[in-house]
Amino acid sequence: MIKNMVNVQTLKGFRDFLPTSSLKRQFVLDTLRKVFISYGFEPLETPALEYEEILTGKYGAEGDKLMYKFTDNGGRKVALKYDQTVPLARVVAQYQNALPLPFKRYQMQNVYRAENTQKGRYREFLQVDIDIVGVYSPLSDAEVIAVLAKSLEKLGFKNFKVLVNDRKVFENLSDRGITDKDIPVVVRTIDKLKKIGKEKVIEELVDNGVDNQKALALIEALESQKPTPKIQEILSALSKMGIDEKLVEFLPTLARGLDYYTGVIFEVEIDGYDVGSIAGGGRYDNLIGIFKGSDVPAVGFAFGFDRLMEAMETLDLFPKDLNSKNILIAFSTSDLEEKALEAANQLRTKGLNTQIFLEDATLEKQLKYADKKQIPFVLIVNEDDFILKNMQSGEQKSVTLGSLPDEL
Amino acid sequence: MIKNMVNVQTLKGFRDFLPTSSLKRQFVLDTLRKVFISYGFEPLETPALEYEEILTGKYGAEGDKLMYKFTDNGGRKVALKYDQTVPLARVVAQYQNALPLPFKRYQMQNVYRAENTQKGRYREFLQVDIDIVGVYSPLSDAEVIAVLAKSLEKLGFKNFKVLVNDRKVFENLSDRGITDKDIPVVVRTIDKLKKIGKEKVIEELVDNGVDNQKALALIEALESQKPTPKIQEILSALSKMGIDEKLVEFLPTLARGLDYYTGVIFEVEIDGYDVGSIAGGGRYDNLIGIFKGSDVPAVGFAFGFDRLMEAMETLDLFPKDLNSKNILIAFSTSDLEEKALEAANQLRTKGLNTQIFLEDATLEKQLKYADKKQIPFVLIVNEDDFILKNMQSGEQKSVTLGSLPDEL
Repeated sequence: MIKNMVNVQTLKGFRDFLPTSSLKRQFVLDTLRKVFISYGFEPLETPALEYEEILTGKYGAEGDKLMYKFTDNGGRKVALKYDQTVPLARVVAQYQNALPLPFKRYQMQNVYRAENTQKGRYREFLQVDIDIVGVYSPLSDAEVIAVLAKSLEKLGFKNFKVLVNDRKVFENLSDRGITDKDIPVVVRTIDKLKKIGKEKVIEELVDNGVDNQKALALIEALESQKPTPKIQEILSALSKMGIDEKLVEFLPTLARGLDYYTGVIFEVEIDGYDVGSIAGGGRYDNLIGIFKGSDVPAVGFAFGFDRLMEAMETLDLFPKDLNSKNILIAFSTSDLEEKALEAANQLRTKGLNTQIFLEDATLEKQLKYADKKQIPFVLIVNEDDFILKNMQSGEQKSVTLGSLPDEL
Repeated sequence: MIKNMVNVQTLKGFRDFLPTSSLKRQFVLDTLRKVFISYGFEPLETPALEYEEILTGKYGAEGDKLMYKFTDNGGRKVALKYDQTVPLARVVAQYQNALPLPFKRYQMQNVYRAENTQKGRYREFLQVDIDIVGVYSPLSDAEVIAVLAKSLEKLGFKNFKVLVNDRKVFENLSDRGITDKDIPVVVRTIDKLKKIGKEKVIEELVDNGVDNQKALALIEALESQKPTPKIQEILSALSKMGIDEKLVEFLPTLARGLDYYTGVIFEVEIDGYDVGSIAGGGRYDNLIGIFKGSDVPAVGFAFGFDRLMEAMETLDLFPKDLNSKNILIAFSTSDLEEKALEAANQLRTKGLNTQIFLEDATLEKQLKYADKKQIPFVLIVNEDDFILKNMQSGEQKSVTLGSLPDEL
């Protein structure tokens, strides 16, 4: 064996997920999948690699810059998936007959961005999206918000709010003396109200050339803004859908990527996790039709999966028993092998995840392995009986196979 | 809306999976995952993109040629994942403290190969691998074979066999007058025995310069070869593990990628599906240590996921009821909306996947949608009652919400 003399490392922004974290990811994905399916959403998978011309020009100059692009062996210009929305637009155009509208899909795949890596920014990361394509109704807006709230509940979040606004709230800014070219920066600044407070926002607006009086008037006008008719309909539908009204709040200063959205917008605020929103979305009626050549309405949201995982970790929401059905069968002499293998078989039939130590080893070594692997139970096979050892408490007792898994 | 004037298409060898096929893929993955976990295997995820120097040189000249390689924005030479074994070798070297041996992992991720596309050959495809790292024992060989057999059983396969051989069988070929340089081609030819028959194999061997008599003697010797001691131990362990002995067959002419394997090798034969083996594996004690600089024994197998899916389809093994818990709630006037939304909520609580038509539409249009989407049941909301329509039989009857899901 000659050692391969390379640096053993991953690329910056790319991650390995070892078993402990991969199991947690799987738990979250399984939970979300169940919620999505329960509302009639269907899975979609698209390739990691697409023709560059499909992807470029859709995410602005910044997006094009951050895209992984290269020329493949056949001379084709290709790019790695940047998000899941443009591929959805392609799918909607490409399979018009196979996919009757409304099309409600969820998608859970990795996307790739050549970001400057920093805390919480990765170059390969999982996106979890749901979208309803082909419907304009407030009912569809309400449904994606309901799915978001229900997802968070199922994951164990308790003190959270979905903040909701209508992009239409910003349409009359020019009536308030804001010139068209200033609207994006004004909206982006106002979006920070909840975070940095009124005073700082006004300061920033003035720095950006907005008259002090106008800035104050604008904020006061927004703050006293009543829910638009569409928002009223959405809130009413959410209540009929059984979503607790305390979970949804109209916030007229919420902005989010204004150029993209055309109607309702929303994001999530969680007590005890203030790094940023773990999910956000809205209505965007001008994007999904881009390849089809006709308007196709759409509303949906994306989880920032890494933030979601971080929030779950921060709030200690992962079930303690993700690993609880695991058991190691230990035996110390080869004449006990058959008994051990039979026991493993029986326990598996009963739904226990059962492994056996696969080479000759002392009992001590096997227990040490279970400890390192955080396997909660070891069943020691003796000639005359089985001893169940609880690895956390250290407690041991003689058991029969029949009494498992109840004894765990 | 200006139509984006590009060809709406995917790259050759790259596929979209629309809901019907994505659901089936998910069913297979969930089933396999449960089996793997039940034997104590743990999930691992590694990046799609790695430093090129990690991946190149490990798959031979052919592999290097088929690898997707490019230079990223930061000038780093990178490559897309070619398989899951070299990344596993990297992980084993990189996280020696976090991953005590034995390390039993499963991995289900896409890999990328710039293959000539042809029937069943793709450039992006899912690999499903399990491996046991760090153990030499026949018990570990037997365990991966047991997991393979159990996986196939759980997926619904009935008439299949795991064909098993020991690479050691080919070690004494030079004693039989085969020169060292001829061994690879001789082994590859012999591997075809079951497929093309003895006569054709001898013909091919002679074409390759092997003396006719020697070729015949060689085949006869192999055919009468008894299981090696290691194979005997593996078969005995499999029987103790509760694997029906009819499911495992010693086949001394089985060869598989000889350069890579160092001990037991195996693949799957399925009655009614003869396109090729849907899974194969073996022991390879000289590869996983390549980055660590010391020998690390390993045994495992990979499913050819696309072939597995094709075999399931050919043998009609997908459950008919993958979709059976789905229901569409239809209503035709807006004053029934609240009743419909409440019903949807109740049914979801009962574990039914329930969707509601999200825009104003005639009952006819809603039924047509359910039909196109192959939603098996529609619950029509009336002022005074609910009508359950079985979309396949056309049968309709008045039901109460309380009687669902039993009525389905």
